[in-house]
Amino acid sequence: MARGEDFQKILEYIEKNIEKSVSDLQELCRQPSISTTNVGIKEMADLLHSRIEKAGLSSSINKTDGNPILTANIKGASDKTLLFYNHYDVQPADPESEWISPPFEANIVDEHVIARGSTDNKGNIISRLAAFEAFLAIRGELPCNIKYIIEGEEEIGSPSLEKFIMKNKDLLTADGCIWEDNTTRVDIPVLSLGNKGLCYLELTCRTANVDFHSSSGQIYENAAWRIIWALASMKDENENVLIDGFYDDVLDLTETENILVEKIKPYDGADRVKKFELRKFLLDLKDEQLPRRHLTNPTFNVAGFDAGYTGEGVKTIVSGRGRAKIDCRLVPNQDPKKIRDCVQNHLRKHGFDDIKVELLFSSYPAKSDPDAEIVKACIRASQRLYGQDAEINPFGSGSTPCYIVLRNLGIPLASTGVGRITSRTHSANENLKIEDLMDGAKYMAAICEEFV
Amino acid sequence: MARGEDFQKILEYIEKNIEKSVSDLQELCRQPSISTTNVGIKEMADLLHSRIEKAGLSSSINKTDGNPILTANIKGASDKTLLFYNHYDVQPADPESEWISPPFEANIVDEHVIARGSTDNKGNIISRLAAFEAFLAIRGELPCNIKYIIEGEEEIGSPSLEKFIMKNKDLLTADGCIWEDNTTRVDIPVLSLGNKGLCYLELTCRTANVDFHSSSGQIYENAAWRIIWALASMKDENENVLIDGFYDDVLDLTETENILVEKIKPYDGADRVKKFELRKFLLDLKDEQLPRRHLTNPTFNVAGFDAGYTGEGVKTIVSGRGRAKIDCRLVPNQDPKKIRDCVQNHLRKHGFDDIKVELLFSSYPAKSDPDAEIVKACIRASQRLYGQDAEINPFGSGSTPCYIVLRNLGIPLASTGVGRITSRTHSANENLKIEDLMDGAKYMAAICEEFV
Repeated sequence: MARGEDFQKILEYIEKNIEKSVSDLQELCRQPSISTTNVGIKEMADLLHSRIEKAGLSSSINKTDGNPILTANIKGASDKTLLFYNHYDVQPADPESEWISPPFEANIVDEHVIARGSTDNKGNIISRLAAFEAFLAIRGELPCNIKYIIEGEEEIGSPSLEKFIMKNKDLLTADGCIWEDNTTRVDIPVLSLGNKGLCYLELTCRTANVDFHSSSGQIYENAAWRIIWALASMKDENENVLIDGFYDDVLDLTETENILVEKIKPYDGADRVKKFELRKFLLDLKDEQLPRRHLTNPTFNVAGFDAGYTGEGVKTIVSGRGRAKIDCRLVPNQDPKKIRDCVQNHLRKHGFDDIKVELLFSSYPAKSDPDAEIVKACIRASQRLYGQDAEINPFGSGSTPCYIVLRNLGIPLASTGVGRITSRTHSANENLKIEDLMDGAKYMAAICEEFV
Repeated sequence: MARGEDFQKILEYIEKNIEKSVSDLQELCRQPSISTTNVGIKEMADLLHSRIEKAGLSSSINKTDGNPILTANIKGASDKTLLFYNHYDVQPADPESEWISPPFEANIVDEHVIARGSTDNKGNIISRLAAFEAFLAIRGELPCNIKYIIEGEEEIGSPSLEKFIMKNKDLLTADGCIWEDNTTRVDIPVLSLGNKGLCYLELTCRTANVDFHSSSGQIYENAAWRIIWALASMKDENENVLIDGFYDDVLDLTETENILVEKIKPYDGADRVKKFELRKFLLDLKDEQLPRRHLTNPTFNVAGFDAGYTGEGVKTIVSGRGRAKIDCRLVPNQDPKKIRDCVQNHLRKHGFDDIKVELLFSSYPAKSDPDAEIVKACIRASQRLYGQDAEINPFGSGSTPCYIVLRNLGIPLASTGVGRITSRTHSANENLKIEDLMDGAKYMAAICEEFV
């Protein structure tokens, strides 16, 4: 049989084995692996290692200064090498009370697996493994060489990944890379070709070593107020960041990028307004404005704020401590450390030098060439399955560490996977539609088939 | 014997019976009476009722919608009637581990009774009863008529007191009132002649029914930012409240009040800066500016703020909900409900009509006339015992319910008692120096003697 003629059988194999794939996913999801709180990490690495070996790849668990990184590989028919990247750690599941099904039970509700990690990123892992297994079962080999790297610290900023990759450059050499996901699949696959950077800062203020009775609020400084005033000086109600230097390194879009951004379908604003009970979109953005804003604008976001009494009812205190978490999504070529410095300078300049700034983590923005072979293979794979080009988002919307592969290894990449906007990654009731798991696995198979 | 000639004997009686007074105080303190958690309230009311009757007053336990209110009275020599107010409930004792002696054992350590309630407010109750008993033992009658009201909900905002007082106006009619305490006695008695009001608001904002992944921070509203901007629009960094109408009802100080405020000793700023590790006082206030600011300025305080992720480390979300607690200490004649309306109008005017405002607690400011007979009697009583005028704070610093007596019954009052700044009311190791209990009882006796 000529190469590729049996591809339909591979797709059928994926379909027929979907129940096994779902139960594989449930098994991974039932093992919590929360990197922020260091829960279940070792157990998850061991479980995943044995699952990968069962799929037929040879795999190893590599120690790092942080959580172990799994690598795996298998030779294929062509000389081309395709690198896959995923992560096995997940976000915390709080507030657990908001889940319709417990976050680590991975129950099936209405044809969806409900679990922390169901999409981000365990569903993506299973979609890759299901594709590899289908090739091995039907054809006995993969179309190209496969390398796989799965880390356990993505949700805390991948502190060990760059060092590991730089130490193992040769091990990871590849002609293209499929990154974890972009959670924007609709009816056809969506590719994103880069990532936002991230500058995550913690601002802390202590005005006293106690909280005072609020009957002395006329004479003591309040740390909550100091942080409120500092933050209000940094971004206005029209979303303009007022920090000197914040926008300095933002690159203009190239002509190709502009064309690709224009091609992206308007988001369905009305649907999201209803589903998420939005008051409105930021700045009253219209559907057709949303994609460009989403993909090309940096953010200056308050991810969290607490000061004083945060329980129910009444407690009358002047807060001696306050803390805000600032999360900036950066676009090429903003630099997280420069942004941290800009924030520090701003605070100093505006009389808030008592507010301490700590960079809790950082990653760089990066983008991949839209004309690279891996991107073309992903487009052909979409044509093969759907008779249509994949949608291309020239920039990622998330802050994945794919900049390490793009910048440090020079490997072009596309990020794609099983997630959709309704997957609620990082929120309560994260879920994966079973049909999306199947379609995701088929798409991975088609990409492997095309990348030769 | 002419009236008053035996007063020295009354003071001696108090001194000779100090051990009995201490053991009376221990008995009251050993009965917990925590209104917040409803522990021991009924038992305390019964115990106190029999203690008051034993002192020679006729007393009754009055039902309310909440905790019972005790009333008592006894006829005296003159036609004047003096009303006393105290409360028998106490704050919770947690954290119990921080007490050097268990909070409800009322042990004596280094000439202090260590117990929850030892000063606030059971020590004050015993000082009143000891004075009454001394008159009855030596003279067979009190110098004036005495009425007494002791409630059991002061620590939870006195929800039943106003209704009870309004229903029993006739029963409580008096020419002057001694309020519970002001816990600022130093070497001579301190009087405070009023109370701050309190307007406690909860501001809540929901921009969505979920927290979004912060990679969508360019397109979704963030509830944390909305509250930050709203709050920053309400008070500037120089502590000016920018809400229309906030200061409208603030009364200027009278000439007498100005003089009294000027007489108050500067606070020891350096000591507090060291003890509380302050960066500085608000607005760089100097020691001599602190009392005036503390006593005469209303506050607009953030008692608490939380939005988004408030745990340790990193979580990247756009917060769909945010909440701030605002606690305003009001001065005469600000009105908590009007302040709530001003805040609502401000939010509406500034485009924040999505932020909901709820009034969680309110009470009114009030002040007593410094020239009232009861104040003069307190000053004469201080002269009689110490050869000096009592210190007068024309306004209270806390938000006690004395406004009910001042505003609704029109009875002038002075708040004074056995407490000092080191009594640690509301904290672990609340205490009362035995000598202060004795001096407090003598001062109560002297006030009764002078109020004729």
